[in-house]
Amino acid sequence: SIHGSRLLRHIQQLGKIGRDPGGQLTRLAASDNDKCGRDALIAWIKEAGLEAAVDRIGNIFGIWRAPSQEHQAPVLIGSHIDTVINAGVYDGCYGVLAGLEVIRTLREAGFTPSRPIAVAAFTNEEGVRYAPDMMGSLVYAGGLQATEALASVGTDGSVLGEELARIGYAGTEEPGFMKPHAYVELHIEQGPVLESMDIPIGAVENLQGISWQRVTIEGVANHAGTTPMPMRKDAGHAAARVITFLRDRAIHSQTPAVATVGCIRFEPDAINVIPSRATFTVDLRNPDEQSLQAEEAALDEYLTELANAEGVTITTERMARFEPVIFDAAIVGLVEAAARQRGLTSKRMTSGAGHDAQMMARICPAAIIFVPSIDGISHNPNEHTPEPDLVAGANVLLDVIADLAR
Amino acid sequence: SIHGSRLLRHIQQLGKIGRDPGGQLTRLAASDNDKCGRDALIAWIKEAGLEAAVDRIGNIFGIWRAPSQEHQAPVLIGSHIDTVINAGVYDGCYGVLAGLEVIRTLREAGFTPSRPIAVAAFTNEEGVRYAPDMMGSLVYAGGLQATEALASVGTDGSVLGEELARIGYAGTEEPGFMKPHAYVELHIEQGPVLESMDIPIGAVENLQGISWQRVTIEGVANHAGTTPMPMRKDAGHAAARVITFLRDRAIHSQTPAVATVGCIRFEPDAINVIPSRATFTVDLRNPDEQSLQAEEAALDEYLTELANAEGVTITTERMARFEPVIFDAAIVGLVEAAARQRGLTSKRMTSGAGHDAQMMARICPAAIIFVPSIDGISHNPNEHTPEPDLVAGANVLLDVIADLAR
Ligand SMILES: NC(=O)NCCC(=O)O
Ligand SMILES: NC(=O)NCCC(=O)O
Repeated sequence: SIHGSRLLRHIQQLGKIGRDPGGQLTRLAASDNDKCGRDALIAWIKEAGLEAAVDRIGNIFGIWRAPSQEHQAPVLIGSHIDTVINAGVYDGCYGVLAGLEVIRTLREAGFTPSRPIAVAAFTNEEGVRYAPDMMGSLVYAGGLQATEALASVGTDGSVLGEELARIGYAGTEEPGFMKPHAYVELHIEQGPVLESMDIPIGAVENLQGISWQRVTIEGVANHAGTTPMPMRKDAGHAAARVITFLRDRAIHSQTPAVATVGCIRFEPDAINVIPSRATFTVDLRNPDEQSLQAEEAALDEYLTELANAEGVTITTERMARFEPVIFDAAIVGLVEAAARQRGLTSKRMTSGAGHDAQMMARICPAAIIFVPSIDGISHNPNEHTPEPDLVAGANVLLDVIADLAR
Repeated sequence: SIHGSRLLRHIQQLGKIGRDPGGQLTRLAASDNDKCGRDALIAWIKEAGLEAAVDRIGNIFGIWRAPSQEHQAPVLIGSHIDTVINAGVYDGCYGVLAGLEVIRTLREAGFTPSRPIAVAAFTNEEGVRYAPDMMGSLVYAGGLQATEALASVGTDGSVLGEELARIGYAGTEEPGFMKPHAYVELHIEQGPVLESMDIPIGAVENLQGISWQRVTIEGVANHAGTTPMPMRKDAGHAAARVITFLRDRAIHSQTPAVATVGCIRFEPDAINVIPSRATFTVDLRNPDEQSLQAEEAALDEYLTELANAEGVTITTERMARFEPVIFDAAIVGLVEAAARQRGLTSKRMTSGAGHDAQMMARICPAAIIFVPSIDGISHNPNEHTPEPDLVAGANVLLDVIADLAR
């Protein structure tokens, strides 16, 4: 079994890095705070006696291999250490640090793997600063050119490639340099299912599709006091209609569709001026590709109607689009078996969040292990998973990795 | 008659001051750009041979008086030269520069007034940077303590008093230092009424009430992919509901109610995080005080219902509240008579916008003269009034002022 208190200590230590004076945790990809987190991870990788490597998109690897295994495909454990704004400490970090702990435990136990075992921390999984999300693993899996990804312009106007160079994490390895034998990710559920059913282990068999767009509505700025209601072309009001449309549609959907508007801006942004422009993001998800396409089509149709009805102009820009993913049945089976062996109940389930595993599934057998999230809260400082669940999840990971590398 | 081309030249000159590299005009109260505009106005006041004075809230005066008239109440012409963001050139500036032109014309014509005549440019009429709007005239009329107004914190975190000192316009006169005999303001209509009826002069007999509030909605940040729709406490979605509620209510109102949401913010403002907080402004107006109170009450009631239905917390903060104003019937009559004398049609009307005259009406007889706005557009770079209308309005002002100072 893994060294529980060591894992928990590392999680708390990493969670202290990148807090603002008010105590909020924000380690956006390739920021100064991310550099501090990365430096800590590299130090732990070396302390564990592993080889450290960084590729061109800034993905960090800690590799355990015998000299004779140089050209063998590793079993890869991965996740990310970048965070959202005002984040919790578990999202991503738990999976990376548990991966490191599993490798240390196997080494300390004298386990002799038949192939390398490595842990990866992928760049910009959250997608908060640069789109798309899961960028590091997407590039690693060959789904996006490194050069194109490095040219991404962030919400703050920064360029990812320049930022990675600035913080010293523009590595030299070519993304994809180690083709994995298998990929396993351990992650908090970030949703309410496991906790509400009192089940400690989720064997994630699929992951829903993700559609990200930016919508821009152009109306006409005019005086808030003198412009009669019927004469307005209010971009802000039109944006509000879209938000309520998306909510009403998702809430009444027969499918498990979700829809979120997380960012919005009005221009000129003055109390007594009718907004001439509104821009906002739309995040649509569905485990079924047909259904996700139907949601996208319904939005398109609504935007066309709305533009006509309100006399505004509406344009959309694609920020990310990932189809649903089905994970490797054999690894999902290993997760279930490992849980059973340890006397833990488990449940096959769908991931609502995007994860690096969804990209890695393009190049090797992959799956995810979930542990419960209290109240389903994530992307929030109140994100929490009880310590016994964190340790149990890492032990299931240990057993699955040992099976894959035996 | 006034010197039309001189007036038009001054309007264009002032309209060139405070443009950004992209050509957008923004001279927010007490900003660097406002300083440049104020400096130009002071130069023109001196060039016209008038006494320049600045009071503690930064209101600028150009005063024409004989030594014997030192203690006499002046006929005051006024408006403002601060602008909204990405503004037109007429709003406010037209009234100040026409006032200056009227005084020059009367002097050049050898007119001997029975009392002083002065022109005023009031600080922060727009209210875009500091609330409330019409601040300089409100303080001048004794409706707000100068000390309190000077402590106002702007949307950019600046403090008005510090900014006025920094740009050199923290004057020494006590606001209210000249109690006016009468106050007249010439302004573009900023609405569609005069143009649509092809009438060049509006004799403004009343002005609608203005209610400004800031609404803050607190929900719970959570993951956009994993949080089922019914479990969300989405502050952004709740804000959108308020916007559509206000719009639907105003558009179906039996009264000429208007409602506008011009500013909005979501937190944490990330594409895949459900907003934990939404803040937005509400601008409600109505010419009838009872009706305005009914609109405010309806909003309050809706916010209470919404908070219960959505599981969010909603608080409101008052930013400005002005009751409707009825102007001086005698001056309104002088405006109509002056228009008739010059062969111009006129129309008694309501002002939809707030104006400094509404504050000055608290301390002296006051009224407003409107000229048409093409397409009713204002608070927008396309704000336009044809030159003959600008000149006609200034000539009506000339006649009214001559009548009041005869
Ligand atoms: N796990 C996670 O929060 N990933 C970020 C991508 C997403 O929005 O699902
Ligand atoms: N005239 C004008 O635009 N005043 C600003 C105050 C208001 O919002 O009405």
